[in-house]
Amino acid sequence: MNGPGGWVRIVGLGPGADGLVTPDAQAVLDTCTDVVGYIPYVGRVPERPGLVKHASDNRVEIDRSLHALSMAAEGKRVAVVSSGDPGVFAMASAVFEALEAGPEEWKTLDIQVIPGITASLAAAARAGAPLGHDFCTINLSDNLKPWALIEKRLRLAAEGDFAMAFYNPRSKSRPEGFERTLDILRDCCEPERLIIFARAVTTPEEALTVVALKDATPEMADMRTMVIVGSSLTRVIPGTGIVYTPRFVEG
Amino acid sequence: MNGPGGWVRIVGLGPGADGLVTPDAQAVLDTCTDVVGYIPYVGRVPERPGLVKHASDNRVEIDRSLHALSMAAEGKRVAVVSSGDPGVFAMASAVFEALEAGPEEWKTLDIQVIPGITASLAAAARAGAPLGHDFCTINLSDNLKPWALIEKRLRLAAEGDFAMAFYNPRSKSRPEGFERTLDILRDCCEPERLIIFARAVTTPEEALTVVALKDATPEMADMRTMVIVGSSLTRVIPGTGIVYTPRFVEG
Repeated sequence: MNGPGGWVRIVGLGPGADGLVTPDAQAVLDTCTDVVGYIPYVGRVPERPGLVKHASDNRVEIDRSLHALSMAAEGKRVAVVSSGDPGVFAMASAVFEALEAGPEEWKTLDIQVIPGITASLAAAARAGAPLGHDFCTINLSDNLKPWALIEKRLRLAAEGDFAMAFYNPRSKSRPEGFERTLDILRDCCEPERLIIFARAVTTPEEALTVVALKDATPEMADMRTMVIVGSSLTRVIPGTGIVYTPRFVEG
Repeated sequence: MNGPGGWVRIVGLGPGADGLVTPDAQAVLDTCTDVVGYIPYVGRVPERPGLVKHASDNRVEIDRSLHALSMAAEGKRVAVVSSGDPGVFAMASAVFEALEAGPEEWKTLDIQVIPGITASLAAAARAGAPLGHDFCTINLSDNLKPWALIEKRLRLAAEGDFAMAFYNPRSKSRPEGFERTLDILRDCCEPERLIIFARAVTTPEEALTVVALKDATPEMADMRTMVIVGSSLTRVIPGTGIVYTPRFVEG
């Protein structure tokens, strides 16, 4: 039997700017008793009397989810925070994995996902409209899936002439993955294909770089970088830095 | 020479609920002189003294964009509104197409894209976390691209075992496209593959249906429906209606 009044809200805080936190997300942060999440994201939630923060390190998503669900079962109002959108390579899937593996009574808990502005769309907005046509969203981290699957998906996405948005392109512990990604793209795409490196968008550290594939280097990405690869039709408007993908494809 | 003080903001209003309109989007709506967009989206912007609304019908995106840019060049502060995110099958690409084709002085206009909660992520949040792993986002309308390209992309997305999010699955003028889409999916995916039909999410008309591919029918979708197809690993948590895609894929 769960305690009365408890809930879990899996909340997206958006890419960083306060102006991109939705009112629905803000309402959760204003009414929860407990906030759970990765240290820098919990740090984005303002302190207030009665609010208990539970910040944890990266890669403990399931422990964090079990903690959130067990507190909700005790009657607490728990916000599980992610940056961006919680459903895109963030906490929502982890909470549901924990829910499925947990005690039967958790299944009657009041759980909702509150969407947020995901990094790919915030980065695209800064660049122009590079995702204005069909696109694929791919997590380049091989922590939770084999590299062979990432490579297969990259090649199929290129074959389909999708634009591509890459999350987690490169970390200190796996610097080689993004180098391999660039090699695969060079094998499948023309040298002039546009790539956008959008670091820490909407924060004071924001930096945007647009280069041709032939000029892209692995060091242009880190874990705070969103990488967007255009389709073959993606273009820069001459005389501006604006990158967009036209809506029309000839038959 | 452009008039002083003019700008264009290409704004995403989110899927429908006021609680998913970002503060940045609201700030544009509060300070613009003119709002331009498709009739139902302009209708979502509250009236206020001094605000001029320019609502137009569907399929006149370039005319609407030219109008917005020419008003900004005259010194007006123009909001171009889309539902969802303006960079995903919405007005941002159209405005940039018009900008590229327009007079040289437009290229110095102050233009920004303000991202929004796109329909696929709002629908995913309502269902659980079906897009919690790699996914493709595809516009099923063949108004602006050949059907053969849509079919090619569907087959490649299925081969890569991506989850898929479909915009504009079906309209009165092209009822056959979604029927063909289901046929292609049945050709590429197992009969138990999960499909989510999410209609008018976050509005009073919201309706969510989850079925196996074998039980999906074309009539389950209309132009207000977001369709999400799971990957082969997407599952329902027994005893709940929650659909999610696990983060882990075995090697």
